[in-house]
Amino acid sequence: MAKKIVIIGAVALGPKVACRLRRLDPEAQITLIDRDDLISYGGCGIPYYVGGDVNDLEDLYKTTSHALRDETFFREIKGVEVMTCVEAAIDRKNNQVLIRDLNNGKTRLLDYDKLVLATGSRAIRPPFPGANLPGVLTVSNLHDAEQLKRMMTQGKIGTAVVIGGGAIGLEISEALTDLWGIETTLIEMEDQVLPTLLGKCIARTVATELQRNGVKLMLAQRVKKISAGEQAEGLEVHTTSTTLQTDVVILAAGVAPNTDLAAQAGIALGRSGGILVDRRLRTNDPDIYAGGDCIELRNLVSGENTLMALGSLANRQGRVIATNLSGGSSHFTGTVGTFCVKVFDLGVCKAGLTYRQAKETGYDPVYSVVAQPDHAHFYPNAEFIYVSLVADRKSRKILGIEAAGKHGDGVKARVDTVAVMLKNGLDVDEVCCLETGYAPPFASAMDVVNNAGNSLDNILAGMNRPIDAADFLVEFSRQSCRVLDIRGEREASPFMEKFGSRWLNVPQKELRTRYREIPVDEPLFIICDTGARSYEAQVFLNTRGITDTLHIQGGYAMIKVTDPEF
Amino acid sequence: MAKKIVIIGAVALGPKVACRLRRLDPEAQITLIDRDDLISYGGCGIPYYVGGDVNDLEDLYKTTSHALRDETFFREIKGVEVMTCVEAAIDRKNNQVLIRDLNNGKTRLLDYDKLVLATGSRAIRPPFPGANLPGVLTVSNLHDAEQLKRMMTQGKIGTAVVIGGGAIGLEISEALTDLWGIETTLIEMEDQVLPTLLGKCIARTVATELQRNGVKLMLAQRVKKISAGEQAEGLEVHTTSTTLQTDVVILAAGVAPNTDLAAQAGIALGRSGGILVDRRLRTNDPDIYAGGDCIELRNLVSGENTLMALGSLANRQGRVIATNLSGGSSHFTGTVGTFCVKVFDLGVCKAGLTYRQAKETGYDPVYSVVAQPDHAHFYPNAEFIYVSLVADRKSRKILGIEAAGKHGDGVKARVDTVAVMLKNGLDVDEVCCLETGYAPPFASAMDVVNNAGNSLDNILAGMNRPIDAADFLVEFSRQSCRVLDIRGEREASPFMEKFGSRWLNVPQKELRTRYREIPVDEPLFIICDTGARSYEAQVFLNTRGITDTLHIQGGYAMIKVTDPEF
Repeated sequence: MAKKIVIIGAVALGPKVACRLRRLDPEAQITLIDRDDLISYGGCGIPYYVGGDVNDLEDLYKTTSHALRDETFFREIKGVEVMTCVEAAIDRKNNQVLIRDLNNGKTRLLDYDKLVLATGSRAIRPPFPGANLPGVLTVSNLHDAEQLKRMMTQGKIGTAVVIGGGAIGLEISEALTDLWGIETTLIEMEDQVLPTLLGKCIARTVATELQRNGVKLMLAQRVKKISAGEQAEGLEVHTTSTTLQTDVVILAAGVAPNTDLAAQAGIALGRSGGILVDRRLRTNDPDIYAGGDCIELRNLVSGENTLMALGSLANRQGRVIATNLSGGSSHFTGTVGTFCVKVFDLGVCKAGLTYRQAKETGYDPVYSVVAQPDHAHFYPNAEFIYVSLVADRKSRKILGIEAAGKHGDGVKARVDTVAVMLKNGLDVDEVCCLETGYAPPFASAMDVVNNAGNSLDNILAGMNRPIDAADFLVEFSRQSCRVLDIRGEREASPFMEKFGSRWLNVPQKELRTRYREIPVDEPLFIICDTGARSYEAQVFLNTRGITDTLHIQGGYAMIKVTDPEF
Repeated sequence: MAKKIVIIGAVALGPKVACRLRRLDPEAQITLIDRDDLISYGGCGIPYYVGGDVNDLEDLYKTTSHALRDETFFREIKGVEVMTCVEAAIDRKNNQVLIRDLNNGKTRLLDYDKLVLATGSRAIRPPFPGANLPGVLTVSNLHDAEQLKRMMTQGKIGTAVVIGGGAIGLEISEALTDLWGIETTLIEMEDQVLPTLLGKCIARTVATELQRNGVKLMLAQRVKKISAGEQAEGLEVHTTSTTLQTDVVILAAGVAPNTDLAAQAGIALGRSGGILVDRRLRTNDPDIYAGGDCIELRNLVSGENTLMALGSLANRQGRVIATNLSGGSSHFTGTVGTFCVKVFDLGVCKAGLTYRQAKETGYDPVYSVVAQPDHAHFYPNAEFIYVSLVADRKSRKILGIEAAGKHGDGVKARVDTVAVMLKNGLDVDEVCCLETGYAPPFASAMDVVNNAGNSLDNILAGMNRPIDAADFLVEFSRQSCRVLDIRGEREASPFMEKFGSRWLNVPQKELRTRYREIPVDEPLFIICDTGARSYEAQVFLNTRGITDTLHIQGGYAMIKVTDPEF
């Protein structure tokens, strides 16, 4: 007899399970249900719809070949029944789902042999007062996005406050500022943007890019409340330090898994709050699978369970569930947290753990920071790429990589390769020898990712004693120390004028003859363009007894994107 | 006492060894020698100098911070002695190198504790008559490149013949055509371009790109001889089928390792003709290391030894040798043959084995071909990327990947990740689940590389019965068969007009109701835009008893770049 499969949730994982299962099992009765009337859309495209890169909302739920993914599409083309605008309740004892039509209240019972939970996630509304006022929007689904875009096209928004400096907060800030010229303020309670995704070094390059493009950043600020402003449609956002007038507030304070349905049915949840699944993506009920934003996943680097709301993971999991539903055996072992986001002209990617996360996990992490042209430096279109690599001191195991640069595809290339290494538990030496495609229009002979490995190898060997640009800026402002600038006089002179005797200049080519001039009564920070030559200078000065030195990783290139005012 | 290190060859590996060794061992006496007067240059940049992307020859031997890498640079900045324009002979018994100055004939003996062979490779001059005529150039070093560029800037070249369809032949063809508008004919003896690098499917997309940009391709043609033409400075190239008049001939028939010096000294060579080294990059003489283009390397996928002349590998090996010379222990285990090249607007990358190479190695290879937008299809700047993935049928182990597309960095991203998987012996299932960075401006939720894995998984499962575009074009032209076009009427009608009853059109959305109309007396090739829907249609038709079908992998997108005239 044909198997009865019911899938609750029809945005990303649900449709994937349904369509693949139909191909694997021509007989199965597959029913896909959703609370909403819009289904199977590219939710990650919402900021680009808001920002105008995607003109038409329908583009987000069309296929590559421009077919609209609606109920008719699923029925006629995919052979899958879809019911929208329905609410579900699970009766595990009887393997049934009770369906209630949200339009007319009618109910119906669906039998299932196997059930799939694809209930996704929802935007978190923070607990401060005013989070539910009109004009306070989330951008978690197409309806909110439509409302926001309508307001913008009607010219109703001149100023906006975005609350939350995660990926969606950054994407929405860009969307508002870039096309619409809306004066946008981004508030984040941590002291950096993308706090769960990036360490401080790469986060600073992202912050600089936001500011360069006119987004006002308020870091380490909490919102206390939102209130209706004095103007007709305005709002006031009260933070720990100030009050902002704004036409609209966008909440981008993260997402939470939708697990109410599962919890009510007694499905086990994990510590992080997501539905607990095994490697086959089966819940504690052998007849119920779950995947997508609503489950928790093993972070393969930290070993801890985590939430990871990404359409890309949902799609891969959907394929696994369909295979298992049809009697095959497929596994999804977890995530290494690979991630990317476009922030104005910058592509930003990461995989694995940040330095802080690695420390919290119990590792003894060490990191390198490298700034280097992404293509051969002599090839005309090269752009800087900034890479930070984290490894464990003792085991030398790679723990994470972060990168940013103007050629986003190239940034992704470096991070994606290391992501594979992370999944396979490889060590720093493998990054040094990493064999990536080389031709001058696409990479350097010794590529930036290899150099991130080489630097870290040298740091672990004790040969390379670095300080990163962010730490340098703090140290230089508060302690008695000097900078040895080994760039040319032209590059060094503005800083010598600004900082006087605290900024020394001995160009690299004169270092072997002039090192005796260098005063050694105070710690010395060595700087060059990108950090390669300052490291070499540090090694040389060591051999001449000048050892109280730190060289600035990523050099002036990194300082420039960390604090352009310096 | 200070160790004496002599390094023969100062282009890529030699300088890398010298500079890192200086950092690791401040006392060592390091001498770097070369036959040439130009050293430490980016040889891979030559085609870009010829083509004008790199204006100044000096740019190829400048550092990122614009210092010229000449003898003074190495002495003053790196602490490394350099002797140029000298010839060397090795006296292993006495651990000495006999140096002869090529300018004045003076000789000198250099003692060594350790010797490094970095003798590189040279362009092959094929054995046909006329290969040494004036006007027959190779582009293996800066001197040849200068001569060629001088001739072009003087307007002496209106037509050119490039012999050899490998990477350098393609890069030079582009350089001649693109900036200089030189009428260029490319001759290759195999029936495809990049025959050692690509399988036929991706090679066809490259050939199409060359032709689209005006390069005349002559495949499966041998050059019999070159003779002086009737015009003052012209040449005649006689091939198996025709005679070409040309102003200049560029030989790009591959490179051969420079091993004379090693052979004369009794250093063991491998089967491929390169110097044999162990994992520490030591030759059969424990005091002599070798690396770069002159050694042979283990191909980690085929297990066979191979030559791989790439500056990127040379640099990584240089670091390994320096570490070992200084008493450390570092390994270079081999290559998976990762490669990339820019061909006009196309980035082309590969890693591992082609289908044919896999077969010759003894595998039972199977491949998939996928065409898909490289970014989310709704994101405005998406471009097609064409990917072919090869795996072993029985073990499911990945054996190779090839890709091409307009966003070269993005092509590299996909291939580099799979290269890591190849090095670690992973299987198809890992490609299906491959976790790469996802955001709409950079990837699809189910990315092209995952889909290449998914397709291959389906092919291995027997669910997906494909034919590639190149094979289809042959089969359709010679056998009695029909095409079932499941695209819309608008897309299908030009082909229905052209091919009459051999081209059927049942749009995908009508397939479930109209499948009975499909005649089943002849084999059926199913086509859609990209191959995703034709696969789905094949699966559906199977359930209705229509089983003599093959679907066209990569769909019409792949046909268009395989034969734009179809």
